[in-house]
Amino acid sequence: MFLDDDFLLDTPQAKFLFHECAERRPIIDYHSHLNPADISGNRQFDNIAQLWLDGDHYKWRAMRAHGIPERLCSGNAADREKYDAWAATVPSLLRNPLYHWTHLELRRPFGITGMLFGPDTAEEVWERTGSQLRSGGFGALDILRKMNVEVVCTTDDPCDDLAAHACHAASGDSLKLLPTFRPDKARAIHDPVVWREWLARLSDVVGVEIRDLGAFKKALARRHEYFARHGCRLSDHSLETFDAESLTEHEADALFRFVLQGGEAAARDAARFSNYLMDFFAELDAGEDWVRQLHIGALRNPNSEALHRCGPDAGFDCIADFPYMDSLRRMLDRSASKGSLPRTIFYNLNPKDSAALAVLCGSFQDGSSAGRMQYGAAWWFLDQMDGITRHIEILSQLGILSHFVGMLTDSRSLLSYTRHEYFRRVLCRILGRDMAGGLIPDDLEMVGAMVKGISSDNARQYFKF
Amino acid sequence: MFLDDDFLLDTPQAKFLFHECAERRPIIDYHSHLNPADISGNRQFDNIAQLWLDGDHYKWRAMRAHGIPERLCSGNAADREKYDAWAATVPSLLRNPLYHWTHLELRRPFGITGMLFGPDTAEEVWERTGSQLRSGGFGALDILRKMNVEVVCTTDDPCDDLAAHACHAASGDSLKLLPTFRPDKARAIHDPVVWREWLARLSDVVGVEIRDLGAFKKALARRHEYFARHGCRLSDHSLETFDAESLTEHEADALFRFVLQGGEAAARDAARFSNYLMDFFAELDAGEDWVRQLHIGALRNPNSEALHRCGPDAGFDCIADFPYMDSLRRMLDRSASKGSLPRTIFYNLNPKDSAALAVLCGSFQDGSSAGRMQYGAAWWFLDQMDGITRHIEILSQLGILSHFVGMLTDSRSLLSYTRHEYFRRVLCRILGRDMAGGLIPDDLEMVGAMVKGISSDNARQYFKF
Amino acid sequence: MFLDDDFLLDTPQAKFLFHECAERRPIIDYHSHLNPADISGNRQFDNIAQLWLDGDHYKWRAMRAHGIPERLCSGNAADREKYDAWAATVPSLLRNPLYHWTHLELRRPFGITGMLFGPDTAEEVWERTGSQLRSGGFGALDILRKMNVEVVCTTDDPCDDLAAHACHAASGDSLKLLPTFRPDKARAIHDPVVWREWLARLSDVVGVEIRDLGAFKKALARRHEYFARHGCRLSDHSLETFDAESLTEHEADALFRFVLQGGEAAARDAARFSNYLMDFFAELDAGEDWVRQLHIGALRNPNSEALHRCGPDAGFDCIADFPYMDSLRRMLDRSASKGSLPRTIFYNLNPKDSAALAVLCGSFQDGSSAGRMQYGAAWWFLDQMDGITRHIEILSQLGILSHFVGMLTDSRSLLSYTRHEYFRRVLCRILGRDMAGGLIPDDLEMVGAMVKGISSDNARQYFKF
Repeated sequence: MFLDDDFLLDTPQAKFLFHECAERRPIIDYHSHLNPADISGNRQFDNIAQLWLDGDHYKWRAMRAHGIPERLCSGNAADREKYDAWAATVPSLLRNPLYHWTHLELRRPFGITGMLFGPDTAEEVWERTGSQLRSGGFGALDILRKMNVEVVCTTDDPCDDLAAHACHAASGDSLKLLPTFRPDKARAIHDPVVWREWLARLSDVVGVEIRDLGAFKKALARRHEYFARHGCRLSDHSLETFDAESLTEHEADALFRFVLQGGEAAARDAARFSNYLMDFFAELDAGEDWVRQLHIGALRNPNSEALHRCGPDAGFDCIADFPYMDSLRRMLDRSASKGSLPRTIFYNLNPKDSAALAVLCGSFQDGSSAGRMQYGAAWWFLDQMDGITRHIEILSQLGILSHFVGMLTDSRSLLSYTRHEYFRRVLCRILGRDMAGGLIPDDLEMVGAMVKGISSDNARQYFKF
Repeated sequence: MFLDDDFLLDTPQAKFLFHECAERRPIIDYHSHLNPADISGNRQFDNIAQLWLDGDHYKWRAMRAHGIPERLCSGNAADREKYDAWAATVPSLLRNPLYHWTHLELRRPFGITGMLFGPDTAEEVWERTGSQLRSGGFGALDILRKMNVEVVCTTDDPCDDLAAHACHAASGDSLKLLPTFRPDKARAIHDPVVWREWLARLSDVVGVEIRDLGAFKKALARRHEYFARHGCRLSDHSLETFDAESLTEHEADALFRFVLQGGEAAARDAARFSNYLMDFFAELDAGEDWVRQLHIGALRNPNSEALHRCGPDAGFDCIADFPYMDSLRRMLDRSASKGSLPRTIFYNLNPKDSAALAVLCGSFQDGSSAGRMQYGAAWWFLDQMDGITRHIEILSQLGILSHFVGMLTDSRSLLSYTRHEYFRRVLCRILGRDMAGGLIPDDLEMVGAMVKGISSDNARQYFKF
Repeated sequence: MFLDDDFLLDTPQAKFLFHECAERRPIIDYHSHLNPADISGNRQFDNIAQLWLDGDHYKWRAMRAHGIPERLCSGNAADREKYDAWAATVPSLLRNPLYHWTHLELRRPFGITGMLFGPDTAEEVWERTGSQLRSGGFGALDILRKMNVEVVCTTDDPCDDLAAHACHAASGDSLKLLPTFRPDKARAIHDPVVWREWLARLSDVVGVEIRDLGAFKKALARRHEYFARHGCRLSDHSLETFDAESLTEHEADALFRFVLQGGEAAARDAARFSNYLMDFFAELDAGEDWVRQLHIGALRNPNSEALHRCGPDAGFDCIADFPYMDSLRRMLDRSASKGSLPRTIFYNLNPKDSAALAVLCGSFQDGSSAGRMQYGAAWWFLDQMDGITRHIEILSQLGILSHFVGMLTDSRSLLSYTRHEYFRRVLCRILGRDMAGGLIPDDLEMVGAMVKGISSDNARQYFKF
């Protein structure tokens, strides 16, 4: 039945796998966009609108498609107005992941079941969630505990002081709150104003004026070390432009100086400069044995008018469709040839690339450890039932599902931890059907071990938290 | 059972949804290639070969693949010869949409059931359909009435006088026969002979010599108005080349004069000129609140020898595979920045683009109305069970299925109205399975309302016929 | 139940179709990479490691992803060590095709069932297979006979003397062992060292010094004839670079001389030279009424370090993702315009291209025979349950499944003949589900005839062996 305990579990095997091997496993959320200060400070919330709608561009996008004006999405309307607009939208979202997520999020952590969310039930939900939120025990950190979260990795700029992470670590809390090194702005030489501004900020943070490539790389390396000292185990990079070639040290230095002094890089040079730095970051990551994440193929800010009005990350981004396998394999090859290819997780946004990317991972497995290169979980627009199912199928057929490090939230919302539950249900659904249909051995111990691994154990081991 | 009343409906929920909420809903066929004169004149047919095989490039393509010579496909063989060749082909088409369509078309409107079409039954079918066709009551308009068609939009050149549409409107018939503005030849500057010829025709129609871009745009605007006065609510454009940039007014005018005077545009300039006009058409469409349709990614006439022998649209076209998201989003962005982005339906021919295109729609939803940007129904080669299923899945997961304006025929054949039935069966099959499997609430009223909307109501409301 | 007699067959119809219409049909393996000398000499094997692991890059790739060092994959460890490493890997491969293949290969020809392969059972399997292998009756040719193979086509360089094929033919054995003409090195002008070396070899073989394009083409034509005299019915070509244009005879000759004398061709010129030769090979193939195979979209040797260490074809290749439909249709069009387009089978490696390629086939069907252009079976990385299922779906919806020439092994391993069984089970599973679900007529004779055709008859007829 819709959203009961056995939601999505349509074989006895699936029910066993989920309830016995997955449901209670802790969550290792190795990639999120949560605000670390919210967690370290156990931020309190007045109402569910703040938890649900602040910064959640998935919901804003759906609301716009439902005809809700911007004021009630990313705008400055009152919390309750926005909430009611969301309640008016949800009944139209049948078959969209937001429909499932919304009801799963009411079920956990709020315990609200047996009703469908919409205008008719909005008032009751507002009251029941509000009284819980205001009762204490529903701060950001409390929610993570309720959701059985063991590790959260945030996504942080190299210039960040990581004060919230340090503060949380000092508290001795058993939940690990760790930073992730995301140096995208270092590579943003195609956008010279942003890039120079960021460079100035980096200079301030390291206390050294940065006038050439050598100083730049030293500053980046110092921040990398700083992150490592704060428990960082991953880097993260958004790859949106590609070029087959990199630059020499000398060329990169010349371009660095040219743009620093007010020049503008040609698109191709900018892409190659980005490659140069990616190679450098690979060395740093390999040196620390960090895991590198590559998020590939977003096409950001396609709608200038919306960007101007609502800012970035407001639910207007889309999916690029240019070919990149040749450029990407050359990037991997440059690092592999120097012995500095870090363990890497690859995420693609365009599903047309899934098979090729999963196979490319396999071309750089070197036998040194199991699942060294990972074809990463269904990302962003693909993080839905069909996308997760296709990801599991492709990884199974073209790689090794057993070694998969599993789900992440990639979310700005604390309630998104139900996505781990959702993923585990889909995984158990697939495996249960396979067992019932004789596609894999009907051996609950064997398959259960795989489920446990993918739910938590593989990630714990892979990231060495 | 194959092709019984519950064909494709494999849950009680699906049967209810189809029979109670879809089957008898009128058809709003907002995109077709029917000949308006056939409809206004209630054209009579001598035999089913004329209805089935004249101009039907889907069937010709299949026949060639079955080894049928051209004379019996697009050639000048007798009707009965062609019909027999088709009957010889059909039994080999198991699992192809033509197998389903053919049997559905015998069932409705001819009432022929309980037999499989092929050489053994060809004679009987020829007789039974022939006697009905010749009995009166089976003219083009009669057939549309039997199929419960409420609106038909044809696809028309801006130079067309729309006499058939006017004549039909004057008749006071309850079925609406409306034109669609398809100005592809205006943009065909890459093919200067065709383009100049068309320009001369446009000059004639508007009674003004067209010597510069200004006059050209004025003439196009006048035809746009003319179509609007004849009840036109949609434009349609085939996008087959892409460029990220448009031209300035000045550049476009210069290129216009150059090619008019016998020059040849470089491929890149031609593509940019096309962009320039697309931006102009967007303004016209937005001004009238028309819906714009973009058909993206056909690769036409790949086989020169066949083109020479059989002409265009004879079943030899194929699917392009170049990337275009960046160019397309820039086109949308140019219009959106000027406040002249019309409501738009996007159709892709290459299924690799489906996810990215569905997401791009969402990037230009502006909250002004529900489903303003539409990810359009599975088109041409994708208009089959797997393609329709994938379209529904992608629209559901990446957009809002509830707001979908539904099926169209896009057909040259009057019998193609069964494709609406086919689509509705597939839709109800999917939703019924979801309900039975607990993926969506098992609530027939709620899901039934969605089915009614997608079958007719959404289209009626969206197009404002 | 997993791997019982009805493995994958989940309807009564599927069981009937497989057991009555598919299981015992002979295998026409029209494309393999087997060593002809192994077959003609009925090579004996000491142990299953030699059969399973020598040269099997599928397994090596999986082992590396499982963390097995190279020494135990393509390296020089002892047979038993490699075997144990493989046994340690298999239990992790649940849902990967290797898991199914491995158990199917133990079942046939070794008769080992009722156990799961892994470290616990490795010793028993080693003993049971070893005693059979050493008992006689398990040589290469014996195995083919046990697998009911009627025809094997190997893949051969034009310079090959085909001695093994001749020797086998002379033996009067009922199994046909035929060569395939694979002249990829003739087109490898982008790699001048390899190309010149190969040219020298070709000169030797034909006994003529090759100094210009004319002599080159004559030499190739002579080898083509030589292959035809040895029963060759197919050519094979790997297409990895594309250009829309070909060269003129004059340009091709100039480039030929330039590179022969030590020059280096620009990438674009090299691609066009390749096109020139493809057009030439098309003429040769059409002249002999051979079937041409095009394998499209491999991206070879992405990992230089691995290439250096392990050589080519060691399990490091990946999938290209650039667009090529326009270039490919021009290639077909050039041949079709000259009346020299051979019957062709198209295989794509990137599943994003499947629909467009299947449709392109249809654009060059000319009605001269059924299934003249073939959208070929799921290739390499796609040769797994999901890939086979998608291939059948796409071919069904966009072409004519009934005329499909069916499965091939494309394998370096003699045990891969179970892949024909695997394919047939998947085919019967799909058709059985369609019959049970009312998607096609529930007519076992009609659908059974299709299964028989796809299993053997279509291939036998199409290739005219």
